Amino acid sequence: MASYHKPESKVVQELRDIANKLRVDSITSTNVTKSGHPTSCSSMAEIMSVLFFHTMRYKVQTPKDPSNDRFILSKGHAAPILYAAWAEAGLFPVTDLNNLRKIDSDLEGHPTPRLNFVDVATGSLGQGLSVAAGMAYVGKYIDNAPYKVYCLMGDGEAAEGSLWEAMHFASKYKLDNLVAILDVNRLGQSEPTALQHDMDTYRKRLEAFGFNALVVDGHDAFHEASETKGRPTAIIAKTFKGKNFPNIEDQDNWHGKPLGDDSPAVLEYLKGLIKNNGAIQLIPSKPVVEVPPTNFAAGVKLSQPPNYKMGELVATRLAYGNALQKLAAANDRVIALDGDTKNSTFSDKVLKNTPKQYIECYIAEQNLVGVAIGAACRDRTITFASTFACFFTRAFDQIRMGAISQTNLNCCGSHAGISIGEDGPSQMALEDLAMFRTIPTATVFYPSDAVSTEYAVELCANTKGICFIRSSRPNTAVLYKNDEPFAIGKSKVVRTNPADKVLIIGAGVTLHEALKAADELEKSGIHARVVDPFTIKPLDPEIIQHAKAVGGKIVTVEDHYPEGGLGDAVCSLVSEEKNIIVKKLAVRSVPRSGPSAVLLEKFEIDSKAIVKAVNQILAA
Amino acid sequence: MASYHKPESKVVQELRDIANKLRVDSITSTNVTKSGHPTSCSSMAEIMSVLFFHTMRYKVQTPKDPSNDRFILSKGHAAPILYAAWAEAGLFPVTDLNNLRKIDSDLEGHPTPRLNFVDVATGSLGQGLSVAAGMAYVGKYIDNAPYKVYCLMGDGEAAEGSLWEAMHFASKYKLDNLVAILDVNRLGQSEPTALQHDMDTYRKRLEAFGFNALVVDGHDAFHEASETKGRPTAIIAKTFKGKNFPNIEDQDNWHGKPLGDDSPAVLEYLKGLIKNNGAIQLIPSKPVVEVPPTNFAAGVKLSQPPNYKMGELVATRLAYGNALQKLAAANDRVIALDGDTKNSTFSDKVLKNTPKQYIECYIAEQNLVGVAIGAACRDRTITFASTFACFFTRAFDQIRMGAISQTNLNCCGSHAGISIGEDGPSQMALEDLAMFRTIPTATVFYPSDAVSTEYAVELCANTKGICFIRSSRPNTAVLYKNDEPFAIGKSKVVRTNPADKVLIIGAGVTLHEALKAADELEKSGIHARVVDPFTIKPLDPEIIQHAKAVGGKIVTVEDHYPEGGLGDAVCSLVSEEKNIIVKKLAVRSVPRSGPSAVLLEKFEIDSKAIVKAVNQILAA
Repeated sequence: MASYHKPESKVVQELRDIANKLRVDSITSTNVTKSGHPTSCSSMAEIMSVLFFHTMRYKVQTPKDPSNDRFILSKGHAAPILYAAWAEAGLFPVTDLNNLRKIDSDLEGHPTPRLNFVDVATGSLGQGLSVAAGMAYVGKYIDNAPYKVYCLMGDGEAAEGSLWEAMHFASKYKLDNLVAILDVNRLGQSEPTALQHDMDTYRKRLEAFGFNALVVDGHDAFHEASETKGRPTAIIAKTFKGKNFPNIEDQDNWHGKPLGDDSPAVLEYLKGLIKNNGAIQLIPSKPVVEVPPTNFAAGVKLSQPPNYKMGELVATRLAYGNALQKLAAANDRVIALDGDTKNSTFSDKVLKNTPKQYIECYIAEQNLVGVAIGAACRDRTITFASTFACFFTRAFDQIRMGAISQTNLNCCGSHAGISIGEDGPSQMALEDLAMFRTIPTATVFYPSDAVSTEYAVELCANTKGICFIRSSRPNTAVLYKNDEPFAIGKSKVVRTNPADKVLIIGAGVTLHEALKAADELEKSGIHARVVDPFTIKPLDPEIIQHAKAVGGKIVTVEDHYPEGGLGDAVCSLVSEEKNIIVKKLAVRSVPRSGPSAVLLEKFEIDSKAIVKAVNQILAA
Repeated sequence: MASYHKPESKVVQELRDIANKLRVDSITSTNVTKSGHPTSCSSMAEIMSVLFFHTMRYKVQTPKDPSNDRFILSKGHAAPILYAAWAEAGLFPVTDLNNLRKIDSDLEGHPTPRLNFVDVATGSLGQGLSVAAGMAYVGKYIDNAPYKVYCLMGDGEAAEGSLWEAMHFASKYKLDNLVAILDVNRLGQSEPTALQHDMDTYRKRLEAFGFNALVVDGHDAFHEASETKGRPTAIIAKTFKGKNFPNIEDQDNWHGKPLGDDSPAVLEYLKGLIKNNGAIQLIPSKPVVEVPPTNFAAGVKLSQPPNYKMGELVATRLAYGNALQKLAAANDRVIALDGDTKNSTFSDKVLKNTPKQYIECYIAEQNLVGVAIGAACRDRTITFASTFACFFTRAFDQIRMGAISQTNLNCCGSHAGISIGEDGPSQMALEDLAMFRTIPTATVFYPSDAVSTEYAVELCANTKGICFIRSSRPNTAVLYKNDEPFAIGKSKVVRTNPADKVLIIGAGVTLHEALKAADELEKSGIHARVVDPFTIKPLDPEIIQHAKAVGGKIVTVEDHYPEGGLGDAVCSLVSEEKNIIVKKLAVRSVPRSGPSAVLLEKFEIDSKAIVKAVNQILAA
């Protein structure tokens, strides 16, 4: 495929043999575990043999070498044939395939990067092409290297819009190092796909989305596919599910089922097709150019420390932009991505200062996150993806899969909560903390001033897993000195008195409301300790000590719905402590348009509501 | 547009005049509130005048009459011109437009159904067409009525994959009563769109996705657009952002900005264009056919009660299918939708029994939810959308917007948690409870046996807002009699003893583990009360009394990540209670493939882990 010439007939026969060996492997391994998708493997057997033994350039023993061509199996349920290809190529013994899906084997039901030849987890359909596009973007524009990126998709997942977002992106950026392969085997899980074998419609769609689209016989795809400069290539392969499985091929009701009792006849048939039963002679080609490793393992730093005045009014979203600009200035592998909100999130500061380090992803948040995950693979870049915090909900499945992918991804969501004001509920993030908190690899930052926001950005860049920064639209006072140290899981006491009788925990705009409330309470002789948690996940266990110090009474206040956010995090933290009680203030119904301050009052997360809650909890 | 003939020249002039009046209204109202998107309104002014005063058939005074043509403004930020159109058509005084975005006005920054002429909230881009397709599907196949559905989108949102999911769906189902209008005004929020005015590429994409696609001059679209049977129609309108705003038209950096000081000159120019300054003469046409209201306001019931034996092993996902089949049999307005997982979620039972009440949405979960929301609009159907619970994360933004839309939507997510076994983490829902709990209008069911699952389905059908049922893959014992009463927010004590010393709360598979643990604990003389919460949101406040009765010690155990699920819900419920402590068991890292029982043990949510936790909490 792509740039390679047509193989000789001897090679073609060996590629055919390898394809049938991969079928045998897929049947055998799924039989052992009594689950899996052998028919979904079979439709793509020739594609895999051609890619892995003829087309792709890679070092078999070091699958994640940055010089290698990349391969993403977007249809992750075909994992058995992916594992078989790497085993037959020599990475590990073919007999290991029989450990498929066992608890102590990394050959899981769907691929995850626990395996050294897998860059990202797949299995939620329609996500692979965005990741591949992110890798291809980095290859073409940042690594400036000739490696290619191959992404194999099923036809069922062509119904997923994320795939078309990725197509739109790939053609916009002329990713001619990207090859998308569509395995059109006609059958979905529960019925035929909507388009079945309508190859012409697939071709028209891919061409309209800017691809050089070639329809081929997927079981005889051993010919040259012309390469086109300036356009990504799509191979649309007409295939049959269960190909070469007599009485099973192209039949419905065979999705996700091992062959079991039908195996002996099928295996005998397949073995009859294999002409050369000896060892595989074909050796994958090595990369032409060595790509050096990146240099940020030791950490990256802001080019200059924060530079604000105490009390100065600065939106945390603006501080995010300031910090990211400095981080990008200090390291050319730091990149910013945005979904046409860069003048609101302030990621446009990177575009203005170091334009090569900015990728515009337009209004397509699933692809925004997918491209960011792809760009971060093999530690090629440190990625920061930003949009309105509420629109990250569009990419929850990509973020969820990102955790399984062990991805290092930094997200910044601006416009948190009702404090954005007049634009109304559709633009207000009130569930983003719940979403990111539940991600197992996540660190969730919710900085409350410009200084801490800048350090949050620096910490993100140096923290593994998925990091989320929640930034706010309104201007709020700078609370910390420019050299204040910040750390993950370390809160800050922003107000305290030996006579404190209650602990108030707020973040973002509500921390400032908490400070106002404390001023007000002091007038009636009530001293309140006010804590800025800085990170919501992990939450500083020191909060327990603060609560005990004030007599066990906590009020939390958040610009978020009551479930899954700051309040729930605090309740969970103190849940095993006797004599600590928590009163939660949060946005308890669907909000509406209005001025920011009026909304804080109306939805009872302002200083007045805090004063009332403190009085209630003290009376309890 | 669509089926209507070309208007006479006098009418054309009046439509032009109305367009410019709508521009004036949009400028004026956004000036008063000092925020909003007048330039985004201006590009679509002629489209709106033609739709509202020439093409659409509707009763102005009863905008939600089921007989009316529907209009969805997918580009919700153009709300001011939508409000202006209804005001100029006579629904409310034009002077009310000056209340735009005020706290006490329902003329919010983006449209919500607080307004009687809005079916669904918009403002998160790319969602309107799925909703429109759901309405059109119901019109064509369920209402069998001639009303049409018009959806107006911006070109920026054409980058959203959800739009292409909707296109795929609309053409598959030949929705020739759907008209998609694309306002190609070339400019996004922060820069020009990727395709700018490349009308030919838009046309190719829409044609490839099965539309009768017509490119028109969006400021002179007063001609006939041919209607095509069997295909949806798309009007691709070439327009200019800020059209007829001198020195602003087609300029970058004017997104989301009122005209302010530039207004007087622009308003003067616009007024000069208006030839007939008198009252609007054109009257919208009435619908041709009266569509009767639906008949399910009084409630719907299972055609037969559950029919299981105590102790029988039945997966809750199967019970979901059984119940939905019966509910659909009892009322022909109950419909099931699925994303090619119907043989796993068991929604296929509806397809088999009452095929007209099943809609296959293929692998496109955003559109699945969008179509379901559209189908439920104006109470035309009671919708149940199902897929694997983890894949609802794909539609989080649609679900979030569904809450703002006051939608009545029932979702069932199967394959909860690690108990699914060998398929591995990509297929395991471990964040779905967190997601649905944070939705303000949500009711979250997590039934633990077949009987309670069937009643959950019946309750969903009769409950406003967004309902979610979490179903499980493994077979579990039936716990309740077939006539056991179930209610939202009412838990069940499934095991109790006067000497109870601890309260264990589990749901789904973990409730059964809790019962096993209680058996085990009894051997060492420890009595445990076991509670099935039935709904996680709302959570039964009675749990507090149970906790007090056993001495204040609770162990929660859930097949979910620790954040945002059952454990957090319990911690939050008891947070204001002194002397109640909670120990949470949950899945604390990214899981892997393996047998279900082995995984429960490995990730410490099985009976053994519960026994250990109980011993720890009793020692505390």
